[in-house]
Amino acid sequence: MTATITAFERSPDRGNGLARDMRLRWAFEEVGQPYDVRLMSFKAMKQPAHLAIQPFGQIPTYEDGDIALFESGAIVFHIAERHKGLLPDEANARARAIMWMFAALNTLEPPIFDRSLVRILERDKPWYEERLAALGEIIGKRLDGLSSHLGAADWLDRTFSAGDLLMVTVLRRLQGSGMLEERPNLAAYIARAEARPAYQRAFAAQLAVFTAAAG
Amino acid sequence: MTATITAFERSPDRGNGLARDMRLRWAFEEVGQPYDVRLMSFKAMKQPAHLAIQPFGQIPTYEDGDIALFESGAIVFHIAERHKGLLPDEANARARAIMWMFAALNTLEPPIFDRSLVRILERDKPWYEERLAALGEIIGKRLDGLSSHLGAADWLDRTFSAGDLLMVTVLRRLQGSGMLEERPNLAAYIARAEARPAYQRAFAAQLAVFTAAAG
Repeated sequence: MTATITAFERSPDRGNGLARDMRLRWAFEEVGQPYDVRLMSFKAMKQPAHLAIQPFGQIPTYEDGDIALFESGAIVFHIAERHKGLLPDEANARARAIMWMFAALNTLEPPIFDRSLVRILERDKPWYEERLAALGEIIGKRLDGLSSHLGAADWLDRTFSAGDLLMVTVLRRLQGSGMLEERPNLAAYIARAEARPAYQRAFAAQLAVFTAAAG
Repeated sequence: MTATITAFERSPDRGNGLARDMRLRWAFEEVGQPYDVRLMSFKAMKQPAHLAIQPFGQIPTYEDGDIALFESGAIVFHIAERHKGLLPDEANARARAIMWMFAALNTLEPPIFDRSLVRILERDKPWYEERLAALGEIIGKRLDGLSSHLGAADWLDRTFSAGDLLMVTVLRRLQGSGMLEERPNLAAYIARAEARPAYQRAFAAQLAVFTAAAG
């Protein structure tokens, strides 16, 4: 049976791979599994049929036979547990890969996502510049920690894992901010991930949805 | 071998169980495993010895033989995978419990933690009231989603799991805000969790650290 995920009918990022379905698409591509996509309007996301699966009215969701899941991190983990390619076999390396999944979503993503929201929603507020600077400082410290840890390595813990996959999708939100360029090993880390054939297939698939909707 | 975790020498929450070591203590108690604690000053957390384990200079960490982990969510998961009591055996129920772990940390915690920070750091800013109201609105919508999902059930997915453990530690930050009282099933859910003997032992242990340091 092929799993079905949900994605935006018309993504607010205009197909730039920042919507969270990108994480699932990339995971499926890394493990070589097909998937179906059900596109959703913002209105449909708030209807009872979707809320029964996703109580917060968001995308993506994942349905496969008798299981329905939400939360992109949990779905990537579900895919990674069931198919080879995203988690190392050795127990300690596996635990560290899972650690980086949580670090991406709980330590890096909150201030980085906040920054994106502030830039959209608070641009006209009197506090805009001060808020952006404060967030930039928090993000900068976390990027410094990540950059120090990564050093000259290719991936966060030797081989590419679901931890790298989630981390890269989080860091990509900072492209254009200058904060990645200031830490060249992080910029190179993202470029290395984006060069993976699985990433490119996933990116093309989500971009095609946007292009078709806009066409 | 007994695992060692790190915790604040003097917790900013004055022993109210909001520091993230509480999650680990509670998990250990639920599965009936002993643990050792190494207390850390804010200064020691930023030293190379700690940064080698926790690149962001935070607590808690977890060390057990040849493995060292950080990220409270990842550590709770590590404990839950190795000992019975925090994840159901049945595959779909287990995946849903993991889903709620990610939902707690990636959907609920970011705006709730942000609110705590704003109340401490931005109280004197001209935008304080407006910021707090905006965050209250975001948090309110997520609590509504959670409350609808929970309904009259005891736990998020039938039996108590690591998902409930993390969710309750996140929601407890809202105690005193009025937002939980407005959703009585969430207030009752937290009270139900706090009544668990494992919770009470963990709470007492972290409070004892603060009391000793303050005495």
